[in-house]
Amino acid sequence: MNLFNLPSSSALTTPITRAACLALDAQDPLARCRERFALPEGVIYLDGNSLGAMPRAVPARMQRAIEQEWAQGLIRSWNDADWYPAPQRVGGRIAALVGAEADEVIVADSISINLFKVLVAALRLRPGRRVILGENANFPTDAYVAGGVAELVGAEFRAVDSEDVLAALNEDVAVVTLTHVNYKSGKVYDMAAITKRAHEVGALVVWDLAHTAGAMPCALNACNADFALGCGYKYLNGGPGAPAFVFVAKRHQDGLRQPLTGWHGHARPFEFSQSYVPAPGIDRMLVGTAPQLGLIALEAALTAFDGVDMQALRRKSQSLTSLFIALVDQELAGHGFGLATPREPNARGSQVSLTHAEGYAIVQALIARGVIGDFRSPDILRFGFAALYLSHAEVWDAVATLQDVMASAAWSAPEFMARKAVT
Amino acid sequence: MNLFNLPSSSALTTPITRAACLALDAQDPLARCRERFALPEGVIYLDGNSLGAMPRAVPARMQRAIEQEWAQGLIRSWNDADWYPAPQRVGGRIAALVGAEADEVIVADSISINLFKVLVAALRLRPGRRVILGENANFPTDAYVAGGVAELVGAEFRAVDSEDVLAALNEDVAVVTLTHVNYKSGKVYDMAAITKRAHEVGALVVWDLAHTAGAMPCALNACNADFALGCGYKYLNGGPGAPAFVFVAKRHQDGLRQPLTGWHGHARPFEFSQSYVPAPGIDRMLVGTAPQLGLIALEAALTAFDGVDMQALRRKSQSLTSLFIALVDQELAGHGFGLATPREPNARGSQVSLTHAEGYAIVQALIARGVIGDFRSPDILRFGFAALYLSHAEVWDAVATLQDVMASAAWSAPEFMARKAVT
Repeated sequence: MNLFNLPSSSALTTPITRAACLALDAQDPLARCRERFALPEGVIYLDGNSLGAMPRAVPARMQRAIEQEWAQGLIRSWNDADWYPAPQRVGGRIAALVGAEADEVIVADSISINLFKVLVAALRLRPGRRVILGENANFPTDAYVAGGVAELVGAEFRAVDSEDVLAALNEDVAVVTLTHVNYKSGKVYDMAAITKRAHEVGALVVWDLAHTAGAMPCALNACNADFALGCGYKYLNGGPGAPAFVFVAKRHQDGLRQPLTGWHGHARPFEFSQSYVPAPGIDRMLVGTAPQLGLIALEAALTAFDGVDMQALRRKSQSLTSLFIALVDQELAGHGFGLATPREPNARGSQVSLTHAEGYAIVQALIARGVIGDFRSPDILRFGFAALYLSHAEVWDAVATLQDVMASAAWSAPEFMARKAVT
Repeated sequence: MNLFNLPSSSALTTPITRAACLALDAQDPLARCRERFALPEGVIYLDGNSLGAMPRAVPARMQRAIEQEWAQGLIRSWNDADWYPAPQRVGGRIAALVGAEADEVIVADSISINLFKVLVAALRLRPGRRVILGENANFPTDAYVAGGVAELVGAEFRAVDSEDVLAALNEDVAVVTLTHVNYKSGKVYDMAAITKRAHEVGALVVWDLAHTAGAMPCALNACNADFALGCGYKYLNGGPGAPAFVFVAKRHQDGLRQPLTGWHGHARPFEFSQSYVPAPGIDRMLVGTAPQLGLIALEAALTAFDGVDMQALRRKSQSLTSLFIALVDQELAGHGFGLATPREPNARGSQVSLTHAEGYAIVQALIARGVIGDFRSPDILRFGFAALYLSHAEVWDAVATLQDVMASAAWSAPEFMARKAVT
């Protein structure tokens, strides 16, 4: 059995034991990263795909930002504490994680707003075309924004099933917008193949990297990507509502006209001219004053990636997700679970989604026992595996807890059946 | 001489003395608020109109948000720590400062982005009209955004001089966008008169409250205002890049179609439907995931207004600005200063702007001596008077320092002549 990509994993045999998981952890080259995070006692956190755990570097950095830079430095800190260049500086850090150059990524606003900017900009780069192509299973905000753009400028938003995207790429399409790793299934698009096909028909591509950035390697420039965006609060661990990032390939930057023309995207914002002149390069993607507290938290959080080889991160992530699937097979047969995520490790991101008719209540029962995943309507139990801070033994313990929840029917208690929103 | 609106100020005689300023401070009913802020030793901070001082309530609240709610609560804090309703909750708090109902204000994004939303929404409410009216001296980002909207939807952005706004309001105008208190001059528009005239010709009005909210009372509903927006980092003291707010009058909310259709503005975001259905009421102004760290800092900061009567704040603010002008008259005659702000207290906000050909260098020399104001191109020295934390004696000391800078020509030192950006 060769489920795992760690050196000794080929020796693993079924049934998988907890001792075997501990043996994998003992040789995990990323195990040292766990101490970079503060995680609560008694919790196995499988929801870093929704809100990343807190890097230990954050509190002291934030205290300094608030009590020194803000309280003591006051307005002077825009220069003296290098607040001004933070969107570019933090963007450059993220660029290294997604296969882009430092001056192709900037931190600004939210994913939804960045998608709005690049979709309008893309339509302007393809003036004869009116179709924004999307897919039916995308994260809803991407569809809402694409629909909003289409309504505003008289374009057409056309959504097709995931497997029909390649066939739907034709010369009507100005831009296709896809999420690289699906939020529900964890399925990964072939970024290179879709981008290549889009370019063959003259279309541009926007990649939503919400479940990619920090979770697995990404090769935007090697794939010749046009635009991308992603959020700071999932696998980048930037904290709740952390600012998002946007990538614009160098070749598109200078002609780009994005519609949210705010003063921080101006070439000379402090001349206070009444005419808008876009800044050179990626800076024109900025709109208003940068959210410094969020930026500073995100920047501190990114130090958790210091010295981390993204290929090694991917190997560990695949090892964790493969282990989870194998243990679900081994421990949970007959309990009504389906697998919504591809079994082929290269076809999925860093999450595994199960299906179950009682998924909501099961997730609540797990959370009550300290195993935190999340639920996505109508029947998805979603588990994210942040390889920087999770261990194989935790995967074992999570599945053991799930097995107990099912064997005891603990999920059917009334307190687990009443629904609350979970982001 | 009756410069001051504090009880004993009518007794003040010229020349004004520092002792007279101390006497005013001794009877200042808001003096108790000063201790709500952390301010550095040796600094007189006259730039709260650019970045407000740090309220002492912020650090402990942020530490709890980071180390407890995020690190320990993790994803559960969206429910358990009431992160979800924060945009509405903090919006409701700001509503009380600007004369609106709690469910008419929500915290989201930046001023620029909120202006984009409401301008497009306003054009949709006036489908036969294509003119966005503005004014030439507005803060540039408002003009950039209005121009961006006009370009995108085929409308016309028409900017006129401030004194011509009333005359330019005609039945071509869909919406007029003005900043209530001008960022350079501090001049206040008559919100009631302009709103009334706009409505007479069937136009809508957007008020930018960047230099109003937290600085002076504002009566949005009493003026029958349609839309407004403002930022959290000036007189609301929410910290660098704090999130902004947006007001939509109740009567416009349910039909409103704003173009940035993100999932947090959806009626049921956690159903993950592919069709956008706007949330009822003000919630539809949300786009992406709320910037919780910024929101939490802003919410803590707003406690500095607890128990503060905004009319009393206005009286003190007018007392401080009137004192500053009187002292400039008294101490700085012959040094080449002009006054860019109205002498009539009711015609200005909470700032005073002087003009001087060497304004940039003079501001730098003042900052070096601990008196922090800012410079606005080409020749404006701008001083903001945050009445929650400033005293009359500080105004005296600031003018004394300015007198010294001028009398000694300290401003002409080379280190004060080299320009840096100041937000």
